[in-house]
Amino acid sequence: MVFVELIVELLNITTGGNRIAVLSEQTANQIGVHSSDRIRITHGNKSMIAITNLAEHFPNDRIGLFEETEAALGVKGDEVVQVNLASLPESLFNIRAKLRGQRLRGKDIDAIVTDVVERHLSTTEIAAFLTALNIYGLSSAETEALSRAMINTGKTLNFGRGPILDKHSVGGIPGDKTSMLVVPIVAAAGFTIPKTSSRAITSPAGTADRVESLCPVNLSMPEIYEVVKKTKGCLVWGGSLELAPADDLFIQVEYPLGIDPMLLPSILSKKKGIGATHVVIDIPTGVGAKIKTRQEAYTLASDFVDLGKRLGLNIQCALTFGDQPLGYGIGPALEAREALTTLMGQGPPDLREKALSLASILFEMVGVENPRYLAEEIVDSGKALKKMYEIIEAQGGDPKVKPSDLPVGPNVVAVKSSKPGKVLWLSTENIVRIARMAGAPKDKGAGVHLHAKLGEQIRKDGILFEIYAEKTSKLTAALKLANELTPVTLSKKPEEKMVLDIVPEKLTQEKEFIIDR
Amino acid sequence: MVFVELIVELLNITTGGNRIAVLSEQTANQIGVHSSDRIRITHGNKSMIAITNLAEHFPNDRIGLFEETEAALGVKGDEVVQVNLASLPESLFNIRAKLRGQRLRGKDIDAIVTDVVERHLSTTEIAAFLTALNIYGLSSAETEALSRAMINTGKTLNFGRGPILDKHSVGGIPGDKTSMLVVPIVAAAGFTIPKTSSRAITSPAGTADRVESLCPVNLSMPEIYEVVKKTKGCLVWGGSLELAPADDLFIQVEYPLGIDPMLLPSILSKKKGIGATHVVIDIPTGVGAKIKTRQEAYTLASDFVDLGKRLGLNIQCALTFGDQPLGYGIGPALEAREALTTLMGQGPPDLREKALSLASILFEMVGVENPRYLAEEIVDSGKALKKMYEIIEAQGGDPKVKPSDLPVGPNVVAVKSSKPGKVLWLSTENIVRIARMAGAPKDKGAGVHLHAKLGEQIRKDGILFEIYAEKTSKLTAALKLANELTPVTLSKKPEEKMVLDIVPEKLTQEKEFIIDR
Repeated sequence: MVFVELIVELLNITTGGNRIAVLSEQTANQIGVHSSDRIRITHGNKSMIAITNLAEHFPNDRIGLFEETEAALGVKGDEVVQVNLASLPESLFNIRAKLRGQRLRGKDIDAIVTDVVERHLSTTEIAAFLTALNIYGLSSAETEALSRAMINTGKTLNFGRGPILDKHSVGGIPGDKTSMLVVPIVAAAGFTIPKTSSRAITSPAGTADRVESLCPVNLSMPEIYEVVKKTKGCLVWGGSLELAPADDLFIQVEYPLGIDPMLLPSILSKKKGIGATHVVIDIPTGVGAKIKTRQEAYTLASDFVDLGKRLGLNIQCALTFGDQPLGYGIGPALEAREALTTLMGQGPPDLREKALSLASILFEMVGVENPRYLAEEIVDSGKALKKMYEIIEAQGGDPKVKPSDLPVGPNVVAVKSSKPGKVLWLSTENIVRIARMAGAPKDKGAGVHLHAKLGEQIRKDGILFEIYAEKTSKLTAALKLANELTPVTLSKKPEEKMVLDIVPEKLTQEKEFIIDR
Repeated sequence: MVFVELIVELLNITTGGNRIAVLSEQTANQIGVHSSDRIRITHGNKSMIAITNLAEHFPNDRIGLFEETEAALGVKGDEVVQVNLASLPESLFNIRAKLRGQRLRGKDIDAIVTDVVERHLSTTEIAAFLTALNIYGLSSAETEALSRAMINTGKTLNFGRGPILDKHSVGGIPGDKTSMLVVPIVAAAGFTIPKTSSRAITSPAGTADRVESLCPVNLSMPEIYEVVKKTKGCLVWGGSLELAPADDLFIQVEYPLGIDPMLLPSILSKKKGIGATHVVIDIPTGVGAKIKTRQEAYTLASDFVDLGKRLGLNIQCALTFGDQPLGYGIGPALEAREALTTLMGQGPPDLREKALSLASILFEMVGVENPRYLAEEIVDSGKALKKMYEIIEAQGGDPKVKPSDLPVGPNVVAVKSSKPGKVLWLSTENIVRIARMAGAPKDKGAGVHLHAKLGEQIRKDGILFEIYAEKTSKLTAALKLANELTPVTLSKKPEEKMVLDIVPEKLTQEKEFIIDR
């Protein structure tokens, strides 16, 4: 085994995950490593594994360390470290076994997840693993082992005894602000519901983006304990809590590939991480959602229930109508407005109905009699709104905020129908693209406000939707896109258009990839 | 679309392939990119796509460029560039289609290969593509399209009219120095045989490493033309010729994953690149080789012949004995010695027999009568040795070199048998590990010299093999490994050892991954 002493050169940039060390080709030859082989770097009594990156013009007496490596080793520039060839991690052989289609055992999966979290596996190797999982699928035992490994490598919250309730949507329809109603309804009934949510990646708003229009969402663990102690609920961003750090890294790799093989372990590991005991899972189902058919939805639901049992989680899944956006507002502030308005008793009926239904399911799971009645009473009496204001205040927001206080626009344009007709189809995908082009989720006041929903009659020159933008340039771009895409389809007779698509001009439709965990 | 102007900061290191640009998170937000999204960087009238890498503490007014990006754009430090969000490459959608199991059309594969060569796809995306190909397999049409795309994006050699002969081994048994005999035999018969080979990645010696003990192998295209014009043959390293640059990148990603889904396109694209018309493919078959069973070998052979027809290449495959190493020497100089000795008429019979057989197959393919007789006559008359010296001289080596001139060792240790017996099994895998531990292929004089081969009777204290090393520390390490591994198994009666392996203590044996192209 060849050991060499090298002088540290700090590169002052992050690599976005991998622990990488840069060596000259000559130094690499001396140690016996190739690009993508591992080296062990030792500094005093600390030691770590890094993946090698060969550089042509790098000095032979130096090793370049990116910020991740530097931080893990606690080393300064111009200090000397010892470097030698490290063997391949055992987990890489487990990944290779999965590439050949083999079932993995619990300890194989533990090794992979641990090495992902400790950055011993490169993104290339993680990508191969996730691709193989996506193609072969996972057995129940593998799904359980992955969930447990992700829980064990993550942080946990502990709210003590008694049922801990939670609600989760697998995502997929724009405008779904249901969590902003379910949390205050459940908390107002006296149950604990510490809700963590994600920010939008491919959608115009995640729940964390919506709530951020009202109050801070980037709370620390002690702050979350404080808020939940005061109000029984919270609506915070889960991204920095490290409930399942392996999953955060998996998602980074899955995103460009458009694959999502670990949906169940990803969601349920985080539910276990916050200590949930009873969870309602919303599965929006329909042409506008991630899950297109009932058959798909039932399979997913039964997998959720099964995995829940294995992990000791009480789960009920609700298949919900997913053919169009929920409510009218799409975009962080437009949606926060609508959530508040609905808590005040004046919102869109589909949003109210969905929130009451999901809250009732949770109530029924913990033994409440007349659960639907309780949920309705809590909203209609104003208790849910009061609870929402308590949560907003506890998280550091204004407890007197009115829907009209939330800035939207200010640039607005209405898109009108050139002919009369009944709304036959709303393309959620195209509405998402228009809202994002208008600036959502980054510009909180940007988005789309629908005027026409499924089955509604539109007159000639009637408004189909309005586009809101903070910047005029984005409004122009979004309007241009809206005119190209025709996101709202009015009814047509079959004799007007019989050809649905032409093959081989186009590969089949991309499956939408929506992460809203 | 947001354009920002940023000042270039040169990072003076390579990333090993990807074109990566570093941005601060704030700048990325301003442009609207996430980590792994693409940006377009414009400088004067040049423009290129790079993959974004977000860095936490990077200045907001700067963009960090790695050497690959800097070179592609021709930009200097502190110059200003324009940056905006770029759409995802079309080829990424083709990769996603393959992840869903779809067949790809010719133009989809062209787009992928072109974007691999132009570095528009990240190693993560390439890893997912190769994993999917490895699991789903490739149709004949896909295999052909991949080969053509790799040829079209590579450089080509043109030796004019007349048959251009070539020989290739799919690799797998150590000590296989057959090419060093086939090339001079074929060239001595007056046929053109411009042989390119690889260096060892996982084996103790590639043909390029072996030949390098005798003369330079890193020749430029004009130098290769010169050598082949003079001698009709050459034995050069193909790695820097860019015959199939896409494949060079694929291999980088395949290596840590231990997968090899593109074996056929990878090999035959390079054969087309050098202009070959008639190729004999050696498929070593046996427990010691990459291809373990005849059934596997016949399938591979018929795939080779089929792809050859589609590409206009005349191919014959030879299944060869692969249960043990070829000859006795393993390691660059030990093998070069043995090749010369065999050309002189005194080498191991298995090496001579294999070289004569493969040369005869080529002769027969181009219409020679009595092909075996011709091959034997060329060796026995000394014409093959004379031709080898001509090639060595043309490539810049010593045309009078004798086997004993090649330095081996100088540290040598013999491993002896503790009991008498007949050689039942030689573990090529373990012999490879011992030779590499001794320093091969980097230390040219290092390796293993076998004394016992299959079926031979060994007395107590008889020599099984010798280990050669340039450094005493490596000799010690290799000897230690040899004592642990027992690479030579002497015959045993079944009642002495009935249990072959124990489940579930161990996942099944890794498939060996040997690249020798």
